[in-house]
Amino acid sequence: MKFSIDRRYLQDKLSTAARAVSPFSPLPALSGILIDVREDRIVFTGSDSNVAIQTAITPGEMNRLQIESTGSVCVESKYILDIVRKLDCDTVGMELMDYTLVRLTTENGTFNINSSSADEYPFIDFSRPQGHFVLSPDEFRQIVSSTAFACSDKDSRPVLSGVNFRIAGNELHCSGTDTYRLARKTLQLNQDQTFDITISARTLNEVMKSLSDSDSIDIFADRRKIQFVFGKTIIQSRLLDGTFPPVDRIIPTEFVSRLTVDTQELFRAIDRTNFMKNDNVHLIKLDCSEQAVRIKVRAAEIGNSDERLKNASWTGEPMSVTLNGSYVLDALKALKGEQTEFAFSGQLKPIRIMDTKDASTLMVVVPVRSFD
Amino acid sequence: MKFSIDRRYLQDKLSTAARAVSPFSPLPALSGILIDVREDRIVFTGSDSNVAIQTAITPGEMNRLQIESTGSVCVESKYILDIVRKLDCDTVGMELMDYTLVRLTTENGTFNINSSSADEYPFIDFSRPQGHFVLSPDEFRQIVSSTAFACSDKDSRPVLSGVNFRIAGNELHCSGTDTYRLARKTLQLNQDQTFDITISARTLNEVMKSLSDSDSIDIFADRRKIQFVFGKTIIQSRLLDGTFPPVDRIIPTEFVSRLTVDTQELFRAIDRTNFMKNDNVHLIKLDCSEQAVRIKVRAAEIGNSDERLKNASWTGEPMSVTLNGSYVLDALKALKGEQTEFAFSGQLKPIRIMDTKDASTLMVVVPVRSFD
Repeated sequence: MKFSIDRRYLQDKLSTAARAVSPFSPLPALSGILIDVREDRIVFTGSDSNVAIQTAITPGEMNRLQIESTGSVCVESKYILDIVRKLDCDTVGMELMDYTLVRLTTENGTFNINSSSADEYPFIDFSRPQGHFVLSPDEFRQIVSSTAFACSDKDSRPVLSGVNFRIAGNELHCSGTDTYRLARKTLQLNQDQTFDITISARTLNEVMKSLSDSDSIDIFADRRKIQFVFGKTIIQSRLLDGTFPPVDRIIPTEFVSRLTVDTQELFRAIDRTNFMKNDNVHLIKLDCSEQAVRIKVRAAEIGNSDERLKNASWTGEPMSVTLNGSYVLDALKALKGEQTEFAFSGQLKPIRIMDTKDASTLMVVVPVRSFD
Repeated sequence: MKFSIDRRYLQDKLSTAARAVSPFSPLPALSGILIDVREDRIVFTGSDSNVAIQTAITPGEMNRLQIESTGSVCVESKYILDIVRKLDCDTVGMELMDYTLVRLTTENGTFNINSSSADEYPFIDFSRPQGHFVLSPDEFRQIVSSTAFACSDKDSRPVLSGVNFRIAGNELHCSGTDTYRLARKTLQLNQDQTFDITISARTLNEVMKSLSDSDSIDIFADRRKIQFVFGKTIIQSRLLDGTFPPVDRIIPTEFVSRLTVDTQELFRAIDRTNFMKNDNVHLIKLDCSEQAVRIKVRAAEIGNSDERLKNASWTGEPMSVTLNGSYVLDALKALKGEQTEFAFSGQLKPIRIMDTKDASTLMVVVPVRSFD
């Protein structure tokens, strides 16, 4: 195995593969990146046994890749990335000296890194699942930023730690929930499909970090695994087992009152009372009437507050509702619009939160019973 | 106690006082900021019992401070800072409602924070020590950035965790050492003085963060404490007990050989081998002759490297010397010059490291015995 390449391209490919590498990997070999030099390309693979990333580079004018001989090796991810990032040269040579010694060569120096044989790297099946749909990077980012935050971070029900992608006809519904709140993004696809899969939020965030703007994303999935393919990179992950809860049922559809707010004003008003927590939970009370909308917070040991929203309007009977402040902040952050509508079905019923101008994203938050 | 003030000025004063507040304070009252409203000014005090900061504000056109009634209270530092930072208003009112309830008032809201009585705040003696000298903010920054990093971070000899300021005549010598290396900055003062005090590196870094560009710093000290006074702010700290070691003796003055390097080139060459550590120590070997200067690193389990410096010159007999790489990196970072000179007195003797164009800063690093 021997090749030379533009340093920045090598760094880019190693960084992409390294995204899947975890320092807490169960298998020691997985702390490395598998570098497989073939006749016409170099393939880089990184994995933490749940998520695997494979990316390739072929000789081109810009990357100045020259392959002298084939072969493969597994190099410790943090060592190789650190040195390739810090080298001062334009072109770097890489060579396997014996079974496990990798030599990097620059104009002025040589760097030998003890590595391990490619045989020790576990086999990862990158065969392509059958189901297929396409998203633009922008659509994908919208989905992740408006749903992944609502997933559960507890291990008790693994399926809730992911976003459910359900396609029926040409409609894609993406839902994240931890049972106290729901975040949903709906998109139209170009072709009809049937899918019902749940993808770990961690995988989705990894894919988002690896995306470049120019690519469309081909998504291949079956019941076991999913592949995101863009450019010369494949990110593959197991799907989460278990049945995703039937979240459609909790989305309220009939309303008795509505609150419209300036998104930024409400966000900042809630955020500045964030230190008034009871048992580490930030509860806010919305006191709504047609005359005024007030936010009241009371934390026994810390203090209390009462603030009137300047730009808010309420239609319906007066109502007081207590909510988890961080859920509302998360929802407002994800909606991003100028104005947000909270639609109420009645005391203690789930509340639907939406941008007033964009019906494709909706949040549902369940109120908290309050005793004051 | 009642006043109103421009929000940004209040935030600025609270942040300054809060710099001395530590969440790990031995006294619960010290997690607060003492706000003392007098007829003509408000005085803010924060302390962690070692370092204390006092800053004041008097009514002015810009800060719109209006004092309605005097009084004092101790408010939890993190709560008051958090809310004042996040308020949307220009002017904020603050009022003590009874002994311990502090009310902030804005156009649309009120925020009550449970606080504690000013009586619970410990007495801090801000009386002025007799000795006095003056530094410009730039001189002060130079001293801290070129000496504090070399102080010891171990508790075994407290005096080594500070920078020694020794004035004899009109020369100020500032020295930091952990016994393996020394960093020294020398400055000329305007007047003659005699001082020999050691100031904790933590205090110096705090003062550096609080400085604004326009002020000169008046430094008052006796054998027990030091005060840095600039604008309306006093930062006061105990001095470190113990005799600072006689570091002058280890600064070599006669040399048999000299190495001149491009500072950045050497820094980057050492930095990129940083992952090759033996028992978590990064040892580098400089192989010097008139023909070539090479850096060699060998870490049994990780690998080895050999790189030739392009822009380096050596005068003297060929020599190999092993150094702690992080000490050299620290020294080069502090020297900042384009070219750096390493002056050698002989094998295993302390090495003097200086910017080729600035004799006011010098570093001494002791070589490591190496067995290969």
